[in-house]
Amino acid sequence: MAVYLAEFVGTAILILLGGGVVAGVVLAKSKAFNGGWIVITLGWGMAVAMAVYTVGTISGAHINPAVTLGLASIGDFEWALVPGYLAAQLAGAFTGAVLVYLAYFAHWKETDDPEAKLSVFSTAPAVRNPVANFTTEAIGTAMLVLGVLGIGANSGHVTQGDADLSALFSSGIAPLLVGLLVLAIGLSLGGPTGYAINPARDLGPRLAHAVLPIPGKGPSDWGYAWIPVVAPIVGGVIGAWIWKLTGFGG
Amino acid sequence: MAVYLAEFVGTAILILLGGGVVAGVVLAKSKAFNGGWIVITLGWGMAVAMAVYTVGTISGAHINPAVTLGLASIGDFEWALVPGYLAAQLAGAFTGAVLVYLAYFAHWKETDDPEAKLSVFSTAPAVRNPVANFTTEAIGTAMLVLGVLGIGANSGHVTQGDADLSALFSSGIAPLLVGLLVLAIGLSLGGPTGYAINPARDLGPRLAHAVLPIPGKGPSDWGYAWIPVVAPIVGGVIGAWIWKLTGFGG
Amino acid sequence: MAVYLAEFVGTAILILLGGGVVAGVVLAKSKAFNGGWIVITLGWGMAVAMAVYTVGTISGAHINPAVTLGLASIGDFEWALVPGYLAAQLAGAFTGAVLVYLAYFAHWKETDDPEAKLSVFSTAPAVRNPVANFTTEAIGTAMLVLGVLGIGANSGHVTQGDADLSALFSSGIAPLLVGLLVLAIGLSLGGPTGYAINPARDLGPRLAHAVLPIPGKGPSDWGYAWIPVVAPIVGGVIGAWIWKLTGFGG
Amino acid sequence: MAVYLAEFVGTAILILLGGGVVAGVVLAKSKAFNGGWIVITLGWGMAVAMAVYTVGTISGAHINPAVTLGLASIGDFEWALVPGYLAAQLAGAFTGAVLVYLAYFAHWKETDDPEAKLSVFSTAPAVRNPVANFTTEAIGTAMLVLGVLGIGANSGHVTQGDADLSALFSSGIAPLLVGLLVLAIGLSLGGPTGYAINPARDLGPRLAHAVLPIPGKGPSDWGYAWIPVVAPIVGGVIGAWIWKLTGFGG
Repeated sequence: MAVYLAEFVGTAILILLGGGVVAGVVLAKSKAFNGGWIVITLGWGMAVAMAVYTVGTISGAHINPAVTLGLASIGDFEWALVPGYLAAQLAGAFTGAVLVYLAYFAHWKETDDPEAKLSVFSTAPAVRNPVANFTTEAIGTAMLVLGVLGIGANSGHVTQGDADLSALFSSGIAPLLVGLLVLAIGLSLGGPTGYAINPARDLGPRLAHAVLPIPGKGPSDWGYAWIPVVAPIVGGVIGAWIWKLTGFGG
Repeated sequence: MAVYLAEFVGTAILILLGGGVVAGVVLAKSKAFNGGWIVITLGWGMAVAMAVYTVGTISGAHINPAVTLGLASIGDFEWALVPGYLAAQLAGAFTGAVLVYLAYFAHWKETDDPEAKLSVFSTAPAVRNPVANFTTEAIGTAMLVLGVLGIGANSGHVTQGDADLSALFSSGIAPLLVGLLVLAIGLSLGGPTGYAINPARDLGPRLAHAVLPIPGKGPSDWGYAWIPVVAPIVGGVIGAWIWKLTGFGG
Repeated sequence: MAVYLAEFVGTAILILLGGGVVAGVVLAKSKAFNGGWIVITLGWGMAVAMAVYTVGTISGAHINPAVTLGLASIGDFEWALVPGYLAAQLAGAFTGAVLVYLAYFAHWKETDDPEAKLSVFSTAPAVRNPVANFTTEAIGTAMLVLGVLGIGANSGHVTQGDADLSALFSSGIAPLLVGLLVLAIGLSLGGPTGYAINPARDLGPRLAHAVLPIPGKGPSDWGYAWIPVVAPIVGGVIGAWIWKLTGFGG
Repeated sequence: MAVYLAEFVGTAILILLGGGVVAGVVLAKSKAFNGGWIVITLGWGMAVAMAVYTVGTISGAHINPAVTLGLASIGDFEWALVPGYLAAQLAGAFTGAVLVYLAYFAHWKETDDPEAKLSVFSTAPAVRNPVANFTTEAIGTAMLVLGVLGIGANSGHVTQGDADLSALFSSGIAPLLVGLLVLAIGLSLGGPTGYAINPARDLGPRLAHAVLPIPGKGPSDWGYAWIPVVAPIVGGVIGAWIWKLTGFGG
């Protein structure tokens, strides 16, 4: 059960800090208002790093179903643990979104734009085009999983073939590097869709948006919700298989 | 006495660099004027990192009563040392604020806005709402203490159960990571209250603001002063207990 | 063949993330639109770091003909491997540019300016002056190769005289430092020419720009194309020889 | 002689990248034009880090007379080497400024403002007030030397009492941390005077400004030149003595 608790807490931290930085930049009267893309992307990058430092040695800190499924697809993670990991990640993401709601409690009624409020919780495409949006999310998540595996193998702290998965991405400098990888993906590939690259990161907070009593909120855009769930899973599996087929892990 | 001197110097560095970055961004004619939220948050993050590198191996570099009390509450720090640590932190924060006053000496009379001058010293809420402001500060500080404990356990340099507290957050890459944790909290949770997350960081400089001969200064906003003192202590204890109860420290 | 595959994948990652950050900042309706120079330079820096982490232990992650030729010119890399490295780098850069085209698929027809579209692929001078532009690119690339050799020798993970080149810049913190070196060069020397400092980085994507069906694209500016190819090679060899002649590598 | 060559090259790199980032932000038509304070300060921080990585293991990479004199004043550096170090640093700074002039060759005649041109080479006060400007530079440099000694002692790579000075700030993560220290000082204390905190960094490029054939240049402001020379020396000695008297180095 400890690994599931770790995934729950880690994903909650991810969303508290990741959703929080969007709230800071888009909600009216926030001191971080209009902080810019560098604030958004650095905020998400550090959110990942801090989530991994906090729980990494317990569960490996996947905090992302696309990572869990990608690793499982190449035999680097036990399928028996997958359902529990995914459930814990989704519940953690929902909980993190509730914490963001509380942390920015006084700012919801100060903000007029319902799309800005939704953006604190879930991603939305800059140009609505399902094929293009799906492609962007798949490419971004393939890069994420490929990069995570590269960092795990090359950051000098672990060996990729290590049987103890909890050590894989979780010690020394590796969690910071995984955060910088997410920073890189955000800076470079976040423009078209806001880079969900994580089904739990998008779906959990979208559920929270739907149920929380947010003043002046609009619809939760369920028509788009499948893309940041399905595309990251497809991309994550592709990224893991690139790693396996190239043999870069030795 | 060496540990108290280290806490004094460390907290003075924290405020010299942390208050300094706010001065740079808000005081008229400063070259950093209007540098933006990224400058503010990176400045505070690096302020923490540099304070910890300078004194960390001596005292553990708490430089924050919420960290000291949080650790003590779970039995990771001796209660007998707590009063001296808190006094040294408060005195150091006051001293650091005096240094900021001197470093920006020529800019106080160039600046019209008294609220900008106060913001160099102490935090103020974006929307004045005591319950919401308290909640934000408590969430932020819980994240701080939980993250510090995670970094201490997982950065590869220390073991959380280490009896020698001075080594806990103070060597190798750990001080940088603690600075990046404060960067993360600032980026993500700083919008509503300006993230004191440290009673000494807010109270010491507020005292300095009250007594220093700052040209054109306004009131020191003592009505708000209890929130950035009490809420961080509550949050710090909560964060420490999350760490203890989850068992993430092993 | 593994080293060539690694150079191919590494350079593709470099361009996916590097070209991607330019696309994000210059293409219409992107969420990163007008993100500024800090976004551009940090994006390229992290692109380098992530490419090196992913493939560094296999091929040394040159991902740049100027590095390959610079090292070969001082006897630190086998000439027999040079043609394969250069071909793999060029093909990887072309492939990365195709991925950027796909990741930003919905944004090309939203954007009017053909020069902005070309800038996603290739560099252009701020002031067209062949002698000055050549000088800037040569200085920048000399700094790159000199810095890479310094990082390799001083980052605590390798010795410069190490016979196994694949370990030279590829483990521990060294790949991050190489990324920060590229960040430094971009911040400081990128203003006049957009810092190609890498023949493959400029030529591969320029070829992709020429052949891809980009809506509303303009000419590929082949008149300038020789400068970001020749000048980085000259600069890279100069940087390598400064390293060798000063004896800083011991 | 190797140590003097290393100080020469290291200081040249410092100014090439540090002066370069100012050129990028202030010279007309540069792609980095108006990049903001974050670009300036990160550029200088990375300039320091890269200079130290390149030459650190040879000479200890002081690249700053205030560091050399501060260390000598507490007995941590041989006085016999001081004159050679200072001369090499000044010559290196001059050379680096010439390289900046060349790298931005096409931009001098595009730029109207002579003060902007001077700012590429030397610092100037935001508010001209000799006592206040001196105080700011002294505080900043005291922080620099105190922080460098703290990083040397606590970054896990060296012991402060190490007889081999060349290892003191030069291996592993320490050079990056010294760069981040300069970033911190720039963000927080750079507003009033532009943070010379280094006599060679200001005087060498000011000499270059005086002699180089820069189109449309103005006077070199020799009336201010003594402050960024004398104040950093005073501050550096103070910082070193704080370190020694507190006993933080063990």
